[in-house]
Formats: sequence, C-alpha cells, structure tokens
Amino acid sequence: MKKKIETAETIKIIPETTEEAIQQLVMANRILANEGVLDTFGHVSVRNPENRKTFLQARSISPYEVTEEDILEIDFDGNVLTETAMLPYGERIIHGALLNARSEMNAVFHGHPAAVIPFSVTDIPIKPVMHLGSFIYQGVPVYDDYEPDDGMLIRKKSEGERIAKHLGEHRVQLLRGHGCNIVADHLPQLVASAIYLRDNATVQWQALLVGKEPKYISPEVARVAMQMALFGPMPTARSWGYWVARVKANMPDME
Amino acid sequence: MKKKIETAETIKIIPETTEEAIQQLVMANRILANEGVLDTFGHVSVRNPENRKTFLQARSISPYEVTEEDILEIDFDGNVLTETAMLPYGERIIHGALLNARSEMNAVFHGHPAAVIPFSVTDIPIKPVMHLGSFIYQGVPVYDDYEPDDGMLIRKKSEGERIAKHLGEHRVQLLRGHGCNIVADHLPQLVASAIYLRDNATVQWQALLVGKEPKYISPEVARVAMQMALFGPMPTARSWGYWVARVKANMPDME
Amino acid sequence: MKKKIETAETIKIIPETTEEAIQQLVMANRILANEGVLDTFGHVSVRNPENRKTFLQARSISPYEVTEEDILEIDFDGNVLTETAMLPYGERIIHGALLNARSEMNAVFHGHPAAVIPFSVTDIPIKPVMHLGSFIYQGVPVYDDYEPDDGMLIRKKSEGERIAKHLGEHRVQLLRGHGCNIVADHLPQLVASAIYLRDNATVQWQALLVGKEPKYISPEVARVAMQMALFGPMPTARSWGYWVARVKANMPDME
Amino acid sequence: MKKKIETAETIKIIPETTEEAIQQLVMANRILANEGVLDTFGHVSVRNPENRKTFLQARSISPYEVTEEDILEIDFDGNVLTETAMLPYGERIIHGALLNARSEMNAVFHGHPAAVIPFSVTDIPIKPVMHLGSFIYQGVPVYDDYEPDDGMLIRKKSEGERIAKHLGEHRVQLLRGHGCNIVADHLPQLVASAIYLRDNATVQWQALLVGKEPKYISPEVARVAMQMALFGPMPTARSWGYWVARVKANMPDME
Repeated sequence: MKKKIETAETIKIIPETTEEAIQQLVMANRILANEGVLDTFGHVSVRNPENRKTFLQARSISPYEVTEEDILEIDFDGNVLTETAMLPYGERIIHGALLNARSEMNAVFHGHPAAVIPFSVTDIPIKPVMHLGSFIYQGVPVYDDYEPDDGMLIRKKSEGERIAKHLGEHRVQLLRGHGCNIVADHLPQLVASAIYLRDNATVQWQALLVGKEPKYISPEVARVAMQMALFGPMPTARSWGYWVARVKANMPDME
Repeated sequence: MKKKIETAETIKIIPETTEEAIQQLVMANRILANEGVLDTFGHVSVRNPENRKTFLQARSISPYEVTEEDILEIDFDGNVLTETAMLPYGERIIHGALLNARSEMNAVFHGHPAAVIPFSVTDIPIKPVMHLGSFIYQGVPVYDDYEPDDGMLIRKKSEGERIAKHLGEHRVQLLRGHGCNIVADHLPQLVASAIYLRDNATVQWQALLVGKEPKYISPEVARVAMQMALFGPMPTARSWGYWVARVKANMPDME
Repeated sequence: MKKKIETAETIKIIPETTEEAIQQLVMANRILANEGVLDTFGHVSVRNPENRKTFLQARSISPYEVTEEDILEIDFDGNVLTETAMLPYGERIIHGALLNARSEMNAVFHGHPAAVIPFSVTDIPIKPVMHLGSFIYQGVPVYDDYEPDDGMLIRKKSEGERIAKHLGEHRVQLLRGHGCNIVADHLPQLVASAIYLRDNATVQWQALLVGKEPKYISPEVARVAMQMALFGPMPTARSWGYWVARVKANMPDME
Repeated sequence: MKKKIETAETIKIIPETTEEAIQQLVMANRILANEGVLDTFGHVSVRNPENRKTFLQARSISPYEVTEEDILEIDFDGNVLTETAMLPYGERIIHGALLNARSEMNAVFHGHPAAVIPFSVTDIPIKPVMHLGSFIYQGVPVYDDYEPDDGMLIRKKSEGERIAKHLGEHRVQLLRGHGCNIVADHLPQLVASAIYLRDNATVQWQALLVGKEPKYISPEVARVAMQMALFGPMPTARSWGYWVARVKANMPDME
C-alpha cells in the first residue's frame, strides 16, 4: 500500500479537459461506493470542461463498477451525445436541470443515503450540528411535488425544472421518501458534501433522540466553518487524497 | 477486479434450465451472505424451470458456503428428490408451501434480518417509507399461529399451509419473534426484495424515533415506484450486476 | 476459498483430548474476534477433557491473536499449571468458579459486547425477543456485588464464588457496567450463545424504542426453540461450520 | 498472518528517542484510522522525548496515510522546526497548548468521533457507564468559547490557551458541535482513551434511550477501574498489541 502521497499542491481539483474530468468522475463514483454512500442506485455527474452545456456521467451501472469506458456525454435535456448503444440513467434529467440552473456549480449528486431519508418524511429539517456539516447552513428544503405517474422518479424535463426551482440557491435538497440531490463547485467538494451530509444527519438524529433541541450551528458561524474546515484548499486536498487512498487499497483495478 | 460488465441486455434474469437455476441460486445465496442479510441461518429457493412442481435449495449449510454441489431438488411436501445423504433444511416446508400456493412466483426467501424483527413484536406495521421499499405497498402481515411444540420453526406441512394462507396475495410476511418470508418472480427480484425490505425497515425505524407519524408512500404511488425504481428490467439488471460484482470481489472462489 | 465442507456428521463438537480442546479453543477465540463480539478484552475457556478439574484458556492476549502456543492449563483456583513465564488473564477466576459450580457445563465466556451493557445499567431485563435468543428463557440476572477495591474486575476467589452463586442455574448473567458471563455445554454452543445474546439484545433494544412492551417469547416456547433452532445437532454444526469458514476466509494463518 | 507476539514485557510503551516516538506515532495514526476513530480529519501528537518543549505530529494528511516521512517537529507555539515545505495541520495549536499546560502528559488526540458529538450539543454530560470508560471519572467538560471568526477551528495561540484552561486537570474535553480533545501519559494510553471514550459514549447513548437515568460508575470505583482495567501495564500491552496486530493484518505497508 506504499502510496504516492499527493498534497494540496499536487492534487488537481479542477479538471481542465474532458479526459481529466472523466478520470476524476470514475474516482468519485468509486469513492462514494467505497465509503458506503451509494449502493446500486444513485449517480454523480460533472460538467464537461470542454463544453459547459454538457455533462459527463456513467451509463446505467452501479457506481461501484464504473470505469472510464462507461462514461457518457449528455446534454441538459438528457440526450446522450456519445455514440453508443449503452443506456443512460433514467434520472439523468436531474443532473441536466441542476447544471443548467446553477451555472456556478459543476458537479451533481443524486442518492439515497439511509441517514438522510428520515428527515425527508418527518417535519424535522436537517441542520448543521457539527462543523463538518456546516455547508448546509442555508437550509435543506424537502421536495414533494412529484409527477403523479412516474413512481417518485425524476424523469421528465418539466419535473427537472421544478426540482431546480425548488433547490434555488441551496446546496442540498431532500426528495420526500426518496433521497437527496447535492450540487458543488467540483467533484471533490461534491464527495465531501455527500459524506458529511450523511454524517451530520447521523449525529443530528442521535442528538435529537438523547436530548431536547440540539444546539445547532448558527448560519453566520457555519458559513465560515464551511470554508475553513471543509471546502478550503487544504481540507479539500486532504480529504480527496484520503478517499483516493482508500479506493486504491480496496479496489485492485484502481491501484 | 477488472470485471466483465454485464448489462440489462446480457444478464439472464429468468433461468431456463435446472443448471442455470442452480448457478443463479448459488449466487443468490452468496449475495445474501455478502450483503449481511443472512448469517448462518435462513435460506432461499427457486422453482425448477424443468419441473415446476419441484424447487431447488441448498442442503443444511450457511448461505455463505453454498456451492453447486450443495443444491438439492425438493418437492412441495419437502421430500428430497436428489439421491444423496446430504441433509435438507428443516424449514424447507415454507418454500414448498409458498411455491405451491403462489404459482406465479418462482423464488422464496426465509430469513431473520435484525431490522425487521422489531416490527414483528410490536404493533407497528412495516410500510413503505422510501421508494425502494415500495414493493411492500400491499402490506406486511405478521404471522403468529405457531405450532405449539415446534419451537417457532415451520416444519409441518399443515403449518406450511397456514403460512401460505396467511401470506395470501402479499409479497412479504413477518413471523412473530422470528423473521420473514418473501416471494418474488425470480431470484434477482427476491434478493432486491430482501435487501430493500431491510433498508426500508431501518429507515422507518429511524423515522419513527425522530418524528411523529412518518409520511408513508401511498399504495397508488408505491405500486408504480415498485415497477419503475426496483423491479423493472433496468434496475433489476443494474442491482443484480452490482451484487454479483461485490461477491466476485469478496469471495475468491466465485471469481 | 474452496472450503472442505464439514457437516453435522463430520464436525466434532465435543473434544475428547486436551489437544482437540486446544484446537477448538483457538478457533472459538478467533471466531469471537472475527464476529466482533470480543475486542482486546474478554476471554473464553474450555474444561480440559483429560482433567475435568482444570480448564484451558489463552494467556493474557487478545482473542484475535490467540494461537495454540498461547493456551495455558489452569486450575479452578486460578493457578497456572502449565510451566511457562506467560501471564494469565487477571479475571481467569471467573472461569474457574463457574466451571467448578456448574459441573454439567464445559465452556465459559466473559466479555463486554456493547449491545448488552445498557441492560446492565437500567431496570430493563434482557428477555428473548427472537427465537435465536431463546436460550436465555430462564432469565438474565444482573450482578452488582463487586469487591470494593478491585475496580469492577473479578479477581478474588471469594468474589468468584459470589459470581457463581449469583449465576445459579442460569446460562447468562450480566455484570453491572461491565459485561456478561455465559456458560455452555461446549465451545460451539458457547460461541452461538455469545453471538445470539448480542443479537437478541440489539433487537430487544430496537423493539423497546419503537413500540411499547415487545411481545417476548414465553419460557415454555423458548425452551423448545432453544433446542430446535439453536442448540440441536444440526444448527450447532451449521453455525460452527459457518463461523469457521469465515475465520478461514479472513485470517490467513487459520486457513 | 503469523505474528510475532509481543507481551507486556517486550512491548515498549514509553519511547526514549525521537526515532522511537516517530515510529509509535505512525502506528497510533494507523490504529485510529483502522479502528474507525479518525477519518480524513483529526490528528494525534506525542511529546518529543529528546526535547520536551516540542512535539511530533504528521503534516496535513489523513491519519490513514501517515508514514515516518510525514512527521514534523513542532514547538508549542505551532512553529514547524523541521526543514520542509510540507504543511502542518491548521489545528496543531491545540496540541502545543495542551502539552504546554499539562507537563505530566505526553500525547494529545483531537478528533470528531460521531458517538461523542451528540453529548456536545445537548445538556447531557458524558459519564462512565462501563468500566472501560472509567478514565473519564473526573468529568468531561464541554468547550463553547470559540473565536468568532475562525469557523469553530482552534487556530490562534490565545484560543489554544483558553482550551488548555478549560481542560484544566481533566483528561477529555468536548468541543461543542465539533469533537473532542484527549490527553494521556503516552500514545498507547491515548489510543485506548480515544477508542473507549467512543465506546462509552455509544453505550451511554443506548442506555439513555432505553431506560431512565443509567447507573453510572461512581468516581471512587472508576478511579480504581481505570488503573486496573485499562491503564495498568497488562491491559496497556494487551490492547496496544491487539490494535497493532490488526493494523498489520489490514495495511500491507505496515506489516
């Protein structure tokens, strides 16, 4: 396991080419599988650095199995631009809608971590209860405006637009009885957001059961904590390096 | 771990021969062990495609250890048809009774996942609280009509018939203080049902503790969600492919 | 991982020689470590088949690391009979006292599984809530008569005798704020008891939180379930074979 | 996995040279990662045996990845004395402040185990509920005097001094909505403290939910239990040996 150690100086966080984005996207898939955030279902995407009106995403396959050959280029309406017979995810429309609406964001997560779903079916909102969960300081709205006939899946362009409107300027939204969507500046930040959203939800749930109202972190403090503790260059490089090292140790084909 | 990736087009979901059914059954056993749904106890079966009045099931051995040589052919009364000295599971009668009563179903699960047992000893029914748990939208009845002298095991033909009658047209029944039975169209659907029954129970339990009455998914919506999100061809192929890939990575003899 | 599969017919449950008992004891240690029941602390012992007034137990080392060279022969007063400089466990006195008092039992467990400790510091007794937990149907008393100056450790012969008297005819006792002791007919039964005591405690805790009074299993039914579902020859062989297979897969030196 | 077994006699607990301290520090990092106490974030340090006014600590990297080349020498004001371009942890100031204030202690932990955070945001103090958690018998105060603009991170010398004053003569302090600091005589004791603080918090949380006020361990008994059950030479050697064996089994580069 003698790893080449990468540092804040040497880890490339912002991909400049489609090729670099694909490599990072494969790693993001593997990390989310390896850390138990995604199982069969759920998916991530990244804006194409060479065409900001398209995004990159795996074909219909579990994140655990994704390789570079599985990555498709897709436009915001969900059309697969890659010439291939491979099938895309049904819910790719979420990714197109959010990248279209949030031009300052470049990466999207959709998944179903068990720890967050209880907050989507009760009246208790997720709030930051630990500094590493600070990035949700603007609130986590719960979407509940599903298309009647789509079985709680987001598959139509019109519903994608509703989802985007509901997210607004937030970073995270829950989908009632389903899961959550997250947007981020880049994939390493997206992975950190998915992992610490789950961890914050777990700790908040534990705190709610044992005490009365937990002492939440105020939006003012959380905004600073988000930048310093999680999203700054040093924590971003450190956490991405850590998750990459674990993938390399656990998944022989990624070594 | 460079895996040959199988897709919705190439994965065979419905076995056509006894041989194919045996191979799929071994894999189903290993998946349920690998995903932590079954430990020593519990078992799965599949209807024999070459004789719909018999089923295939491992001899008395943990699902973790099952190989092709361990599979027996058994009739609905529990008689072992394979010429062998190997011993069958005591509770094989469950499988015969349910396959007999439910001719449209081809696979049966019996197990004791910890997350579901609390719902068998309290007055709170399991209900779908997340879209991947939608397949239980018709309700999950709790059986509590044990034979007095059988130590809560289902071993007599007459009790097998009571079990089948109690299940009725449902897909899942709990056994009070014991575990659950599940029926499905085929083994990949059965495995998905067992895994997401557990996950739905976990999330429902978490939601019940933190909130008041959770917002359950209505039967109408759940019926559609079941087909689109979990039981349709694409999610079936994706999830089975994922669980197979994890077995191959974790169990060297299955590579 | 092509395992030689052992069956109810071929697995030897009752050791006849000291050598056989030592081999089984090493495996019991490894299983309890591998299944997460014991960490650094806690220990198991087995009565010496060649001298029923002594028992076999590892030197002061974690169960995870135990090998045949680490096994000591000890008398019921805690004297180490093996000629060695190796140090015994401080709490070996528990094992001597229980084997002395319970001549029909041949194996003793002492450990601190997290799931059982809450029941030792509250007024709620552990009771069978699932059929695999039936073996505690006679009740699980909580010991709270510690020697004032021994820091809650059981190290004096007089306290060993109090422990044995407190256990009486039960199979399991909790030690307040500390852990539990278990006695069994043989090591495979002891391992099964330790694992399913933990699992029953987990499920009981989950049931207590979500419902009102759970439906416990009556002593009459539990007595039968214990024999049929867990302690009979077939479940004993199946579960021991399963745990051995997992040790062999996870611990290269035990292959 | 044939391990060279180390015993209370052969395991060196107190390093005498900088080199020995570095080796032990690398192992402590790996243990805390391997046992799930630290993820990306959090860090440990040890006083330099060759210069008691400095300490040793990894550069800004996850504990999972730390090797001997990553260790820096740092003074109590946070100045990096090692000639290197490698970046230190932002919160190294905690370690300097606590080692400066507590001259009898030689090792410091800062981390964010999920099990303890609920106790930092509710009114319920962590107390010893199991004998292995006895070392917190003097109480666990909760720090809540953060610098307004530092995002809940401890980065200024003045705040380090407040942290040290708040800790006083305790061994553990929580940081509200953030995590905990622990001091110990040496690294093996520090690792044991971090692991059993987490385990005690878990059991206490479980006990609080299921019962009324748990029976806590009195300070008088706990003080003795701490020495006999966890911090004495035999349990120290046994537990460190165990955690080292697990690192060697799981991390090929540490074999």
